[in-house]
Amino acid sequence: MTGNTSDFPLQITDRLAGFIAAARWEDIPPAVRHEAKRSLLNFFSVALAACRDPTIDIAARTFGRFSAGANATVIGRAERTDILNAAALNAMSANVFDFDDTHIPTIIHPTAPVAPALLALAETSAVSGTEFLLAFILGVEAECRIGNAISPGHYARGWHITSTCGVFGSALASGKLLGLDAHQLAWSLGSASSQASGLVETLGTMAKSVGVGNAARNGLLSALLAEQNFDGPAMPLEGARGFLNVTGDRPDMDSIVTDLGERWEVLNNTYKPYPCGVVLNPVIEACLSLHGRPELSGKLAEKIDAIELTGHSLLRQRTDRPGISTGRESQVSAQHAVAVALMRGRAGLPEFSDEAVRDPALRALGSKVRFRDDDSFSVDATRVSVQLRGAPAITVSVEVARGALARPLADGDLEEKLRELCRYGRSGCDPEPLIDAVWHLDETNDAGKLMSLAAGKA
Amino acid sequence: MTGNTSDFPLQITDRLAGFIAAARWEDIPPAVRHEAKRSLLNFFSVALAACRDPTIDIAARTFGRFSAGANATVIGRAERTDILNAAALNAMSANVFDFDDTHIPTIIHPTAPVAPALLALAETSAVSGTEFLLAFILGVEAECRIGNAISPGHYARGWHITSTCGVFGSALASGKLLGLDAHQLAWSLGSASSQASGLVETLGTMAKSVGVGNAARNGLLSALLAEQNFDGPAMPLEGARGFLNVTGDRPDMDSIVTDLGERWEVLNNTYKPYPCGVVLNPVIEACLSLHGRPELSGKLAEKIDAIELTGHSLLRQRTDRPGISTGRESQVSAQHAVAVALMRGRAGLPEFSDEAVRDPALRALGSKVRFRDDDSFSVDATRVSVQLRGAPAITVSVEVARGALARPLADGDLEEKLRELCRYGRSGCDPEPLIDAVWHLDETNDAGKLMSLAAGKA
Repeated sequence: MTGNTSDFPLQITDRLAGFIAAARWEDIPPAVRHEAKRSLLNFFSVALAACRDPTIDIAARTFGRFSAGANATVIGRAERTDILNAAALNAMSANVFDFDDTHIPTIIHPTAPVAPALLALAETSAVSGTEFLLAFILGVEAECRIGNAISPGHYARGWHITSTCGVFGSALASGKLLGLDAHQLAWSLGSASSQASGLVETLGTMAKSVGVGNAARNGLLSALLAEQNFDGPAMPLEGARGFLNVTGDRPDMDSIVTDLGERWEVLNNTYKPYPCGVVLNPVIEACLSLHGRPELSGKLAEKIDAIELTGHSLLRQRTDRPGISTGRESQVSAQHAVAVALMRGRAGLPEFSDEAVRDPALRALGSKVRFRDDDSFSVDATRVSVQLRGAPAITVSVEVARGALARPLADGDLEEKLRELCRYGRSGCDPEPLIDAVWHLDETNDAGKLMSLAAGKA
Repeated sequence: MTGNTSDFPLQITDRLAGFIAAARWEDIPPAVRHEAKRSLLNFFSVALAACRDPTIDIAARTFGRFSAGANATVIGRAERTDILNAAALNAMSANVFDFDDTHIPTIIHPTAPVAPALLALAETSAVSGTEFLLAFILGVEAECRIGNAISPGHYARGWHITSTCGVFGSALASGKLLGLDAHQLAWSLGSASSQASGLVETLGTMAKSVGVGNAARNGLLSALLAEQNFDGPAMPLEGARGFLNVTGDRPDMDSIVTDLGERWEVLNNTYKPYPCGVVLNPVIEACLSLHGRPELSGKLAEKIDAIELTGHSLLRQRTDRPGISTGRESQVSAQHAVAVALMRGRAGLPEFSDEAVRDPALRALGSKVRFRDDDSFSVDATRVSVQLRGAPAITVSVEVARGALARPLADGDLEEKLRELCRYGRSGCDPEPLIDAVWHLDETNDAGKLMSLAAGKA
């Protein structure tokens, strides 16, 4: 048996549940409150972008056969469904392009499993903006701390950490909104522990989304069961055969409860400027800055001998992907990202589509990419050197890429991202009132109104 | 990374899915067909026993809020629900007392995750008895073979193997009944892999049942998604970050596809005579045989100095549990099992209830139990020696307990178990037509009719 399994009770579950039960809006610092709104703004962006993706179409049709009513909104779509299905479908939409937020220490996408469960509850009962934000912040806190305790081994072994840890965040956030006491919150973690699943092997396929959707849905279900006193084990997290020992190697259990209420994990959340693996951020930024230079016009594949990317070895390990056939794969291909940014001067979802991948000019240019590992670079930095035939090389360096924790997207960037992705998703939804409602969420008595603004038109 | 992760594709998923797609009723040997019926008979027994347990009451009420219709029967209850909820609730009922069947090599309870999904489908579309039995046999086959590949390490680490492997059995069985092709069956394994979960830590609590219910429900859902061409990874089982490598240490992947169609795992299925951990079977049998002897009447705790149990060390390790407070705990307490069998001459569900545990005479007698480890005994054998005050000891030996693979319950025993547990569950259901329908299942054009016979009255 791995990890800390001494007879002395660590009481991780009890202490976490007790903290959640006692936490009040007044305890939440202003910076944390604001970051929660930024997370939600980004959430609506990415969910609205993917709302009519084939993954969501099939899931909405299949889940729709098992809907108990039209209580809750499916973001960007006209149909309505019950709250469990809505939680699942909206989590799936938010994550289907992997364009959602990233908690840096764990690479959890924190908002997708948590916000949809709360939004479904807020549509079906009276929930104020501050109650909503408090529950959201607490759910993200728990989910990310549980992830911290088993990182990086958990993901490296093959667990899709957004799904496996997300179900706990959803359970506690939902439980907080339902007013559960500490015992019930602990029980909700028990039922959540029975439902924690999701494998890295499924990434790049529709099956991935089932895990992410379940994290939101089953967390909410766990809270609803706990509300009826459906019990669970005393130590679903820290027990000898609990979640942390079974799915982690040498879990750092204490980190889950250390400094609760003093440091906040949502402040480690980041938002992607491009729909790509985050290690590509500096590369794309460099290439976009080169687009349009006079030397780089016309048939680039004939003018350029090589494009050298100098960066941390993780850049090469995760993105050296020359032979790709789908838009999904292009999101983690440096060859494609470099080519499309240089040639088209854009790096949004249309540039990482199946159509873009079929462009032979992009493939020709991408074949010029070479990697040079240099671990003195951070993963947020790169140097891109374009070696022209019979002309001096052009070199651009990026020290800290946009979207990094040290150089976050501005509030205005997040607004613009929502406008752009809303157009991309063709939901017919008007982004302006939604943006306004998110920024003023702490002032409303009806948090569920967000969803009427995010519904699709026809 | 553990296990076999060579670049050579093992094609476990493809070969398993191909076998399931091609299998025909004509290929199934008579002994396998008959064992499937025995498994189903036992399934109805235990589901009817638990149909009004508080776990099922709360789950039925909570899930009932999210039912899309009254298409499917909840065993032993009057309410009807949609097929996903029915699959979940009936799996939970079958397993809540851990009185269901046991696949010896893995200790999977094979029927609970598989049969409920098929029964729900059979109630809502035309399914013949042979189609039903074929799908059931194939689902059990896949579930148990996947379990074999990761046993015993998977359970030892803390995975509730009935839940984690059951979802694959449910997916393939459901997919077979839906007529999916081999590609779609493989995709169903992908969505199932995203949903494989369940922890040993939850045993003894209501939260355990969520995992078992999900195995049935989510396997069925995976098949319904695959029917709509919801895709998944090529190797959800054998991939580097697939189910087997992530949840097993050194999985024996080849065993999943070796001799498919030649040996059948349902022939390794066993049925419990008592609602207890199987290692208690010989002890209870010995003590029941002693009940009623003249020397053992009156106040036993005063007459007896010690009761010595000689057996394999697993008997002591799993059942030396003197201080218990619930009926659930008494099911794995040698002290309680010995006392209740000696004093009451019965060992059914009423003898392992909260009420029985509160009987001080049973606790006094249980305190006399002593263990003597002797690993020359098989887990199916024991020697019980009752040491009387001032009189010769009485000793009984059991070589192979009833319920063991080598001494299975007879068909008539299984019928009697169904009658007794049906009475216990107070569903008002008449066991005789149900028994008859199971034995003649291969002769009917409407397998769904089983469920009208298992529905509760009022």
